[in-house]
Amino acid sequence: MTPNPIIALLTDFGLADTYVGTMKGVALGICPSARLVDLTHYVPPQDVRGAAYLLWTSFRYLPQQTVFLIVVDPGVGTAREPVAVETAHGIYVAPNNGVLSFVLPHVEVRHAVKLEAPRYRLASNSQTFHGRDIFAPAAAHLAAGVPITELGPAVPELVKLDPPQLSVSEGVIDGEVIYIDHFGNIITSIGHLAWENDTLTLTPTFGKQDSEALTFTARACQIEIAGQSLRGVLRTYGATARGDLLALVGSSGQLEIGVNQGSAAGRLHIQVGDPVRLVFDE
Amino acid sequence: MTPNPIIALLTDFGLADTYVGTMKGVALGICPSARLVDLTHYVPPQDVRGAAYLLWTSFRYLPQQTVFLIVVDPGVGTAREPVAVETAHGIYVAPNNGVLSFVLPHVEVRHAVKLEAPRYRLASNSQTFHGRDIFAPAAAHLAAGVPITELGPAVPELVKLDPPQLSVSEGVIDGEVIYIDHFGNIITSIGHLAWENDTLTLTPTFGKQDSEALTFTARACQIEIAGQSLRGVLRTYGATARGDLLALVGSSGQLEIGVNQGSAAGRLHIQVGDPVRLVFDE
Amino acid sequence: MTPNPIIALLTDFGLADTYVGTMKGVALGICPSARLVDLTHYVPPQDVRGAAYLLWTSFRYLPQQTVFLIVVDPGVGTAREPVAVETAHGIYVAPNNGVLSFVLPHVEVRHAVKLEAPRYRLASNSQTFHGRDIFAPAAAHLAAGVPITELGPAVPELVKLDPPQLSVSEGVIDGEVIYIDHFGNIITSIGHLAWENDTLTLTPTFGKQDSEALTFTARACQIEIAGQSLRGVLRTYGATARGDLLALVGSSGQLEIGVNQGSAAGRLHIQVGDPVRLVFDE
Repeated sequence: MTPNPIIALLTDFGLADTYVGTMKGVALGICPSARLVDLTHYVPPQDVRGAAYLLWTSFRYLPQQTVFLIVVDPGVGTAREPVAVETAHGIYVAPNNGVLSFVLPHVEVRHAVKLEAPRYRLASNSQTFHGRDIFAPAAAHLAAGVPITELGPAVPELVKLDPPQLSVSEGVIDGEVIYIDHFGNIITSIGHLAWENDTLTLTPTFGKQDSEALTFTARACQIEIAGQSLRGVLRTYGATARGDLLALVGSSGQLEIGVNQGSAAGRLHIQVGDPVRLVFDE
Repeated sequence: MTPNPIIALLTDFGLADTYVGTMKGVALGICPSARLVDLTHYVPPQDVRGAAYLLWTSFRYLPQQTVFLIVVDPGVGTAREPVAVETAHGIYVAPNNGVLSFVLPHVEVRHAVKLEAPRYRLASNSQTFHGRDIFAPAAAHLAAGVPITELGPAVPELVKLDPPQLSVSEGVIDGEVIYIDHFGNIITSIGHLAWENDTLTLTPTFGKQDSEALTFTARACQIEIAGQSLRGVLRTYGATARGDLLALVGSSGQLEIGVNQGSAAGRLHIQVGDPVRLVFDE
Repeated sequence: MTPNPIIALLTDFGLADTYVGTMKGVALGICPSARLVDLTHYVPPQDVRGAAYLLWTSFRYLPQQTVFLIVVDPGVGTAREPVAVETAHGIYVAPNNGVLSFVLPHVEVRHAVKLEAPRYRLASNSQTFHGRDIFAPAAAHLAAGVPITELGPAVPELVKLDPPQLSVSEGVIDGEVIYIDHFGNIITSIGHLAWENDTLTLTPTFGKQDSEALTFTARACQIEIAGQSLRGVLRTYGATARGDLLALVGSSGQLEIGVNQGSAAGRLHIQVGDPVRLVFDE
């Protein structure tokens, strides 16, 4: 057990109710020395895919021993299993509904168990708030040093979501919008992109780790989105004038469409799932 | 003094301003080892009744020694007293305006004092932010181990709100909507409901602890709300198809109206205070 | 190093994304014993002036050794410097864009450095998320006891914003709206106001510390705002009937326009920057 175990929470509970505070109370009752970090509680209600993306953007910035407590659970009260997954970077406590899909390809899985042992749950009749009764207690016991194998039997298979759309053909990369953030920045499935001088190397991020990398010149391409065409991929918002629409490599290495000091989503009226295309100059 | 004293905050301050952060700064200045847990800061502005409900749903999930710091205070700067109440489960620091009404019937009260001693307040001329100047310092001193009786003289009477409407007559239970959560789930005053196989037992929750319990078959009733009629009380959202409206027992044991993976409040255009009726089959 | 170093965060990131949680993960990875306090993450996007005001209202309520981690950074990726400023009350980690303008006149500055040393940054190619890669690591290293002078060379000049409008002429004080809070209370640049019995003393708050103080009778004046005229300055909301519009001294000592248990901003349709005038009786 680490002296200051971290539990990082990711839910769709919002902060208007006391659901999150209740889970924290349960966790601190079990593991009083835990440090609680909110990743976010504003995943759109029941959006497992959005949660999977948000977890992927942040998990590697939390310390290696972090216990992630993830409750985005449209299937609460059905047969979907509550699970805990111990990996080389993080222990994940979550419903087995695919929410771990985008993280697991990047970490070595050591154990995956079903949360079944009654002594690591709250005694409760409720079938609507497993965050309080099953997931928070499990995360806190794990943070307190209980071996994961005590929480229940091995889970044979973890549910996987399809990765976001990303296809590379001659002269063109086709992707989709995967997230729109608080600033109105539009994050796409085109990534992971890494700079080397003026060239970018694309190594597909989500679940396609064996694909070959593709290298291209950042300025020698067009980005097409929502009927607009943008010239080249830039390094930073500051490279343009205030109010300009631009394409750049965002903080997670994905191609991102933004407006310098403005909202790209507001300007382009775009939604998650809409197509984006990168066309190389001939 | 516990090694990791918990202060649990419940306010209507929202998170857009720095009011909550300021209170936390004051608290940590007085009790540096305190752990701060946000229950919620999105109680509707000045809604003492809503705060009383939210506190009731969560208090028992926080450890027994928790200091609850509650600032929903439409009467700030008037004669209403700032108080601290020590009970068998939790110490409550709050304005004496009824916000503790739904918790106190469930806990044994040991001491109730008026927050008067100047040495446990901040020196300040402000009459508009008692959260910072009176309540946060009191909570932090209590968390740090100061005996409650040092904070001021005994309070003879704690203000009580009327309990939510709940009346049981032959064949019918009449209640009201008491809260609508982030998901649009509608929580009613009909409860506390406990399952035993296929029957439910109703033991009135709010301030009517001596009433006799009533037992009925979960499927042998109709729920009437907002002109809709729902058949029976279910155990879980997953018992219906996506998009179905249903009545179930919520996480606090109250009758709750929801939509599987949707918003019941959005569909029914309902408000807090609207009537709900449970009619038993003949 | 203090045993429980505090890092207080102030950003415009909002809480819908995982940006804040990511910064916290980075900070706790570097300084596991840090206590993280959110001042607010809802500064309007890229509003450096609003952030400067919010920091000023709260900084003195955090303990003296607090490290303030401020990321409101419209110039991310441009030449604006990331800095750390050690003062008699607080260490401030922020972009050098004026966000410290309203605090620095009130504290003695000991060191101001540019955040340049690579060993106190994250290794990352990103030029869009300096909160994660530069500011959070710097704050955490400072909280962990690294001397500020190790983080980089001295900064010759800290950017200063113009102070809010406040001019005193015969019989009239002219100011402006500087902030509107969650309750709809309108905070103005007219302050700092201190009570002594029934008189108020005005000592200009922002960057004009040498001006002479002005003393006047609280009831012998009119406040003009948005076409309305209010009689006198009151001590507290409770001095009026529910729904009344009033002028009072707010919790930071500024003249504030509010509605007892209502929203003044909602009633007056006012914006930050709009004029407010206090006229003394002849």
